[in-house]
Amino acid sequence: MKALVFHGPGSRSWQQVPDPRIVDPTDAIVRVDAVTICGTDLHILKGDVPAVEPGRILGHEAVGTVVTTGSAVTTVKEGDRVLVSCITACGRCRYCRESAYGQCRGGGGWILGHRIDGTQAEYVRVPFADTSTHLIPAGVDSEAALMLADILPTSYEVGVINGRVRPGDTVVVVGAGPIGLAAIMTAQLYTPSHLIAVDLAPSRLEAAKQFGADLVVAAGDDPLESVAEVTGGLGADLAIEAVGVPETFELCTRLIRPGGRLANVGVHGAPATLHLEDLWIRNVTITTGLVDTFSTPTLLGMVAAGRLDPARFITHRYTLGEMEAAYKTFAHPQQTAALKVVLSRP
Amino acid sequence: MKALVFHGPGSRSWQQVPDPRIVDPTDAIVRVDAVTICGTDLHILKGDVPAVEPGRILGHEAVGTVVTTGSAVTTVKEGDRVLVSCITACGRCRYCRESAYGQCRGGGGWILGHRIDGTQAEYVRVPFADTSTHLIPAGVDSEAALMLADILPTSYEVGVINGRVRPGDTVVVVGAGPIGLAAIMTAQLYTPSHLIAVDLAPSRLEAAKQFGADLVVAAGDDPLESVAEVTGGLGADLAIEAVGVPETFELCTRLIRPGGRLANVGVHGAPATLHLEDLWIRNVTITTGLVDTFSTPTLLGMVAAGRLDPARFITHRYTLGEMEAAYKTFAHPQQTAALKVVLSRP
Amino acid sequence: MKALVFHGPGSRSWQQVPDPRIVDPTDAIVRVDAVTICGTDLHILKGDVPAVEPGRILGHEAVGTVVTTGSAVTTVKEGDRVLVSCITACGRCRYCRESAYGQCRGGGGWILGHRIDGTQAEYVRVPFADTSTHLIPAGVDSEAALMLADILPTSYEVGVINGRVRPGDTVVVVGAGPIGLAAIMTAQLYTPSHLIAVDLAPSRLEAAKQFGADLVVAAGDDPLESVAEVTGGLGADLAIEAVGVPETFELCTRLIRPGGRLANVGVHGAPATLHLEDLWIRNVTITTGLVDTFSTPTLLGMVAAGRLDPARFITHRYTLGEMEAAYKTFAHPQQTAALKVVLSRP
Amino acid sequence: MKALVFHGPGSRSWQQVPDPRIVDPTDAIVRVDAVTICGTDLHILKGDVPAVEPGRILGHEAVGTVVTTGSAVTTVKEGDRVLVSCITACGRCRYCRESAYGQCRGGGGWILGHRIDGTQAEYVRVPFADTSTHLIPAGVDSEAALMLADILPTSYEVGVINGRVRPGDTVVVVGAGPIGLAAIMTAQLYTPSHLIAVDLAPSRLEAAKQFGADLVVAAGDDPLESVAEVTGGLGADLAIEAVGVPETFELCTRLIRPGGRLANVGVHGAPATLHLEDLWIRNVTITTGLVDTFSTPTLLGMVAAGRLDPARFITHRYTLGEMEAAYKTFAHPQQTAALKVVLSRP
Repeated sequence: MKALVFHGPGSRSWQQVPDPRIVDPTDAIVRVDAVTICGTDLHILKGDVPAVEPGRILGHEAVGTVVTTGSAVTTVKEGDRVLVSCITACGRCRYCRESAYGQCRGGGGWILGHRIDGTQAEYVRVPFADTSTHLIPAGVDSEAALMLADILPTSYEVGVINGRVRPGDTVVVVGAGPIGLAAIMTAQLYTPSHLIAVDLAPSRLEAAKQFGADLVVAAGDDPLESVAEVTGGLGADLAIEAVGVPETFELCTRLIRPGGRLANVGVHGAPATLHLEDLWIRNVTITTGLVDTFSTPTLLGMVAAGRLDPARFITHRYTLGEMEAAYKTFAHPQQTAALKVVLSRP
Repeated sequence: MKALVFHGPGSRSWQQVPDPRIVDPTDAIVRVDAVTICGTDLHILKGDVPAVEPGRILGHEAVGTVVTTGSAVTTVKEGDRVLVSCITACGRCRYCRESAYGQCRGGGGWILGHRIDGTQAEYVRVPFADTSTHLIPAGVDSEAALMLADILPTSYEVGVINGRVRPGDTVVVVGAGPIGLAAIMTAQLYTPSHLIAVDLAPSRLEAAKQFGADLVVAAGDDPLESVAEVTGGLGADLAIEAVGVPETFELCTRLIRPGGRLANVGVHGAPATLHLEDLWIRNVTITTGLVDTFSTPTLLGMVAAGRLDPARFITHRYTLGEMEAAYKTFAHPQQTAALKVVLSRP
Repeated sequence: MKALVFHGPGSRSWQQVPDPRIVDPTDAIVRVDAVTICGTDLHILKGDVPAVEPGRILGHEAVGTVVTTGSAVTTVKEGDRVLVSCITACGRCRYCRESAYGQCRGGGGWILGHRIDGTQAEYVRVPFADTSTHLIPAGVDSEAALMLADILPTSYEVGVINGRVRPGDTVVVVGAGPIGLAAIMTAQLYTPSHLIAVDLAPSRLEAAKQFGADLVVAAGDDPLESVAEVTGGLGADLAIEAVGVPETFELCTRLIRPGGRLANVGVHGAPATLHLEDLWIRNVTITTGLVDTFSTPTLLGMVAAGRLDPARFITHRYTLGEMEAAYKTFAHPQQTAALKVVLSRP
Repeated sequence: MKALVFHGPGSRSWQQVPDPRIVDPTDAIVRVDAVTICGTDLHILKGDVPAVEPGRILGHEAVGTVVTTGSAVTTVKEGDRVLVSCITACGRCRYCRESAYGQCRGGGGWILGHRIDGTQAEYVRVPFADTSTHLIPAGVDSEAALMLADILPTSYEVGVINGRVRPGDTVVVVGAGPIGLAAIMTAQLYTPSHLIAVDLAPSRLEAAKQFGADLVVAAGDDPLESVAEVTGGLGADLAIEAVGVPETFELCTRLIRPGGRLANVGVHGAPATLHLEDLWIRNVTITTGLVDTFSTPTLLGMVAAGRLDPARFITHRYTLGEMEAAYKTFAHPQQTAALKVVLSRP
């Protein structure tokens, strides 16, 4: 089959590789019908994720069709259309038993396109298929479902649920890239009164409005002032960090009211300063987290019921064979305005 | 001043009575600008609520203007436009300290138009004004705010919050009168996947659709079947009882899935049969409750932010002096299609 | 091997049967080292549980040693000492993913000694071994661990956790048999201020005191009065029903304060009357449930740490071959004062 | 009357001052029967709390007898024995309505001995007496109750409740001064499996053991290793920071497992470094907070029921007139081994 292979920092190719086969009785082989690219894939290609070794097939998001299953697999079978989640769950360890699949201690967690071969390929082996794939309900478009492989559950679980959004809240989302926009989309499931987006790029703020922000704070504006204005000077109930640099995290700590929450979704590479001399007395709650994908079945149901339209994230479409072109588009969002690209089996 | 006085079962009059005056330092006198009638007022008039003695001014919902305050009142002052809530809170007892104002042990709870004179009058004395009135934000219409005196917080707190609605849930509301419709309206703040209304009257089911139900079950249809259809045979996550008779309560216990919830909002006059021989093993949670109005500030904020439109409940408008006509309209909803009537100072 | 076989109502025998063998790759065969008898086994023998067919080996609680495992089993291996839980979990269905293993839709739930052969035998086949057995920590006695197969997690999850016991609460336990005593033992993990036991038998009330009740209400005393005395007339925060008849359930609804909880643990065979005409306004929460055993790893850890001493339940000890004698002792607690009997491999 | 007056950094005196009198109708005048000194008082005397102006009477903890009440006070009366809490609550603002009294926006919060005259005096004026004092149940010793004015609710609410201690948890308390010891005492209300104390001073570790720690980590030992040992290498469920310097906060972030919590109780004067490059993926929750005293009635009830013995904190006793000697003892715990000192009316 063909697959996107990582050859070390800066180097990748869409090339011929051996087909995957069943290794463990809990495995399934899935034919990839649609796949997408994640910001993390770009980090891997830069060499930022040393655990990824040369020769690895990248990708951790896919919609596909089950081709074969191991002898222990009971909930999916040949021909089923499934979502392959970014998180693999052994379903047996302490963390999986508490639905914290992202922290799986039994061989799962984020492994696809990381520690084992991934989904940017014609076929993929999915370990622990019973607990790591999701049947796609009839009537749910494959492309829409694909958005539930990573980006939507990430922002929903780590931003919105960890941040405990409640009806009537004022929520600020700092960073309006795909992850921030997904936080804006899913925060609305709890009907906040105000949903404020902060970013430097005018195009992203325009997207934030279209995804449901009722107020945007542009470069040059003071986010503290904007938030103070709609909250009577008090501060936001929740700030969602969706950038991943110290400055935006520290901004979030200043944007929230006494008793407020800060939900970090951004991937950080450096420490931040935590101003405990101010914060110790302010009753704040700060959370971090990797996605667990426990919400994926719920989100699939909401797409089926017409309550969520994740296909709005898709700005570009390719065939699987156009992998190189898709990467180029996705790697330059300033030029291409790409949010998510989808590559489909022709 | 003029007021609606209860003269014993079946008898009432809009008549001249003495003006109210400050009794305790925590009191406020409020000029009534808009008032509404509750189903409970009809029950009182029938003689169903023996605690209400002849001579009592009825009414427990109002929007008005503060005229005078006692010496201990600090948060509202002359000229303030306030919502007078159906629940009076001493703010000091064990229950009030836990925001369970409806269960106040310090002289509050539901007392207006019940144990002390109420709001269907030109003026009303409001005890514990600091904790029993709510400033109405600029930009919020008085009529819209009036709907937050009882009906909306009741359905929201006792139905939706007690019932723990979550995004993606299937919620059934049994009974589509004003309280059921308020449950339908406020359940949507949590974006359920399915919101199903059950009632016998076609006009009410039509209203349910307009308020946001995506499925209605009419007389002659089997609600169990309808719910099974959208839940893969499993049952609803939550059933909200909004009628108040044993049959509908028992129906609710059958409509929910294993692990489901039943939130009772209906006012009951007779016991129901609880089929523990079926339910003991099904992990169900059943809740009951009187409104506490802890959610009122949040709901006011949501109206101000344009996230909630409670004025949709108002079907008829009168002046205060037309109290008799308003009662007639409200008492015969089959003929008048009345949901809520508003009487305003001319 | 030898096993206790059900031959229809009133008839059982400890007899020779074929050894169990691996059927599915997720199975384990466990040599039974210690087993106990549950009140449910007595019900089956009376013919109260029609799903149990003649020929079935009874028993759903055991401690044993893994003998063989199927090809998909990864977390236990030959020679491991494990707890076989009363609940089997597929680990894959919607309910298992939410830790509601008792409601498993994938072939688990309560199946041992019910729908498949059970643990009152020399060997037992345990389906879904990875998610249905628990490794026993070094230093934890097998007999102590055996008490965690059913009785302790049942009372802890369905009584104490569902009932949300908090430090300082007043908790009433109605029924001081083994399940009630387990509720008394595990409620203390949350340090209630008052823990009151209600029963008719003086010997059980004596046991209740020894297990930690600070107040007992005997036949002839008025439990409402006793609870009122320690709660300033308010009522209990929580009543735990541990009998399973309508009268005790209805008593529980009267014992709790406004805002209180009722956690039903009893197995009911008949409906109860729910006095909604009183309860609708009292903010009560009623829960029911079958054990899920999600708490078993935690409880095992607490036994290992010396925080819980479940061996206190064991009043009688036998060898496996003395199954008939053990049943006789357990079936007549009035005469034998039996709480739990343990049968061990000699 | 006599009172302890602050005269600027480094200067204080026990001197004659005018008696307090009722200012607002919600005030009470309380005769001080017993008072204690807080570490914060020492900070004020050093000049670390600039809001405290010269001439201020210090102290924010007392047990006393009500002498006079304003016209609006309804829940306490002349002759009542009350606990005067470190937090004054208006009972009316948004924060007080959510039991977040420490963040009161209506004139309360920490004001006694800070923004208004305090309790280290023969009499004290207590604003908002209905919501800022607590009746002491008969049978509760005044000295024991005094420990509930600040230290116990602080550690219980900000450490144990914010940190969500659950039965079976491993809890590490970093810092074994009075606040850390109170965390150790109150964490046991939830029966953790392991309760580990970390400090440099051997005498404090000895105290930690006596207060219930089952493991102590001394200077020179590696706390990471000790915690790893009892948690199978995973880390603690909860770390409670009870020192207030960057190093101990950062240590706490390393002591917790993926999915763990860090509850900060320490008062910080400088920022800490938050290693988001490690923590972003670990699902941690960090909380901060000032005490709200919402738990005080519960804790009083537990003392009355014999479930909590806070008098254990009292190491030294004086009469009110020995204020200077008491300060000296409390200011030098290394020499005096003082935990809490009590000064009583002779």
